[in-house]
Amino acid sequence: MERIKQLQQRFADFLAQSDLDGQPTELYAPISYTLMQPGKRLRPMLCLLANDLFGGKEEDALWPALALETFHNFTLIHDDIMDKAPMRRGLPTVYQKWNSDIAILSGDNMLAMAFEFALKAPKGAEAARLLGKVAREVCEGQQYDLNYETQGNVSINEYLEMIRLKTAVLLATSLQMGAMLAGADPKNQQAMYDFGIALGISFQLQDDILDLYSDVEVFGKRHGGDIADNKKTYLYLKALELATERDRKRLTDLFKMHIDHDEDEKIAEVKTIYDRLHVKEAVEEVMAEYDKKAFAALDSIDLPEEKKAHLRSYAEKLAGRKK
Amino acid sequence: MERIKQLQQRFADFLAQSDLDGQPTELYAPISYTLMQPGKRLRPMLCLLANDLFGGKEEDALWPALALETFHNFTLIHDDIMDKAPMRRGLPTVYQKWNSDIAILSGDNMLAMAFEFALKAPKGAEAARLLGKVAREVCEGQQYDLNYETQGNVSINEYLEMIRLKTAVLLATSLQMGAMLAGADPKNQQAMYDFGIALGISFQLQDDILDLYSDVEVFGKRHGGDIADNKKTYLYLKALELATERDRKRLTDLFKMHIDHDEDEKIAEVKTIYDRLHVKEAVEEVMAEYDKKAFAALDSIDLPEEKKAHLRSYAEKLAGRKK
Repeated sequence: MERIKQLQQRFADFLAQSDLDGQPTELYAPISYTLMQPGKRLRPMLCLLANDLFGGKEEDALWPALALETFHNFTLIHDDIMDKAPMRRGLPTVYQKWNSDIAILSGDNMLAMAFEFALKAPKGAEAARLLGKVAREVCEGQQYDLNYETQGNVSINEYLEMIRLKTAVLLATSLQMGAMLAGADPKNQQAMYDFGIALGISFQLQDDILDLYSDVEVFGKRHGGDIADNKKTYLYLKALELATERDRKRLTDLFKMHIDHDEDEKIAEVKTIYDRLHVKEAVEEVMAEYDKKAFAALDSIDLPEEKKAHLRSYAEKLAGRKK
Repeated sequence: MERIKQLQQRFADFLAQSDLDGQPTELYAPISYTLMQPGKRLRPMLCLLANDLFGGKEEDALWPALALETFHNFTLIHDDIMDKAPMRRGLPTVYQKWNSDIAILSGDNMLAMAFEFALKAPKGAEAARLLGKVAREVCEGQQYDLNYETQGNVSINEYLEMIRLKTAVLLATSLQMGAMLAGADPKNQQAMYDFGIALGISFQLQDDILDLYSDVEVFGKRHGGDIADNKKTYLYLKALELATERDRKRLTDLFKMHIDHDEDEKIAEVKTIYDRLHVKEAVEEVMAEYDKKAFAALDSIDLPEEKKAHLRSYAEKLAGRKK
């Protein structure tokens, strides 16, 4: 779609001309390093498309869009410290390339910058308020994620609430913020938010599937990283639900193993169990329900269908993504 | 002064009735733990006193005052990770009591909360803008501080710029914010800011002196921690400036030693050199100049002297503090 490409280009230009430098270099170099990496720019795009949908002006939404992208990248920098992740997007993570003190501080600085950027918009105070709310929720989600690493039993509902907080609320807020900036009424803002929540949960479930079942060439990373890391993803939790007593015992044992075991063998064994239980199909069914919910929220908005076409096509591509 | 005590009580009550709890507990317990510790509440007090000075209403400044205190405590939590500090205010630091992941995340959450609190004020957008600016500067100051740990030569001017960013700008912004909330004009806001910068630098120089020369009973911690940690404080830099070639060589050698040496011996030897060079007196002279500058800025404000009495007495007490 022409309009999607236009907005992507507009945001890329805006980002390129933004002055993200400062002193000392140690503090600011990681910020450009992170923000300038090619990425989907999902959150700014959702903000700009929602703003567009309700007839807002692009220039009123560019700073908030940058705020959302800056905020998202701050969370990645701090999460990578906690997860001890060496690589992201094929490049060394900030704490690996510099060190964890610099990663903490440049992340802090980005969080503050995100608020500064949001406040530059004509409706900056409201944008910053939305950012404050979502920032707390994302922190809560990350803390639940950390807790679940060591917590024995995690229910599917607990997992869904965790990914709602860690992933979905930021997509939802990006959409709501775009709508708010364009002057959409509270009902339509809420519909955009609901659209984003359902889309975001589906997005994360897709992530769980892609980790094991994607085309490696397209996905760009090896398969089964979540299994190697003993991550209790939806696939794993669904498998526990569907498994016989014996498989359940074997799965929980496998998910207690650490890197000293043969990783490939472990991943292969888990995959065999998942496949026997048709876990992938079961998760895809749940995803389809969330996608349905998402598009129902979009349908509920009282605007002509052709206005919604860009956002709909963008979200459809997201729902069917292969990486 | 009655008014100072009133405002202290008002802020303590406000803090006590603020709902700082949330889920998950791991994320929020460190926040109450930190904010509820008895402390000077210096930044909220400066904000409330400046607001008072220009005839502002207390209730308009309480949220921003809490924002400043929350922001300050966020910086302590993250700094303690970087400095590997086991104790603060006589209690274990957050990363020691919990762990560094929780300290990173609860700090992040506090930074977001600080913006949320600031935005609750009638002039919330402007308060949040000031907070955004100062947050970046404090991050810059902390990064310089980290750099100076390993940088061979640090000049006195570099040190002053570092403590301006790390300490003084937050005191200055607290004063400016209070004045802004009360509707003070830009000239008076600037005078408050200048007052805070000079006061803040003097405050930090006093900190450097107290670390070695305070009454331990009053100060509450052992002497010479900065020397043990090889911190290039103003005392050290001034000593290098005043020292003979031989003393300079000895000092730089002593400041390369690590904990495997006898700490007390090292502290005693450095103190002997400082005393011989009259470093304490030299730093006190510099402090006196900053205090003079500070009170000149306060004098420049065109309000009757009796209006300024509370803030003046509060600042004087600060300048003459023993801990």
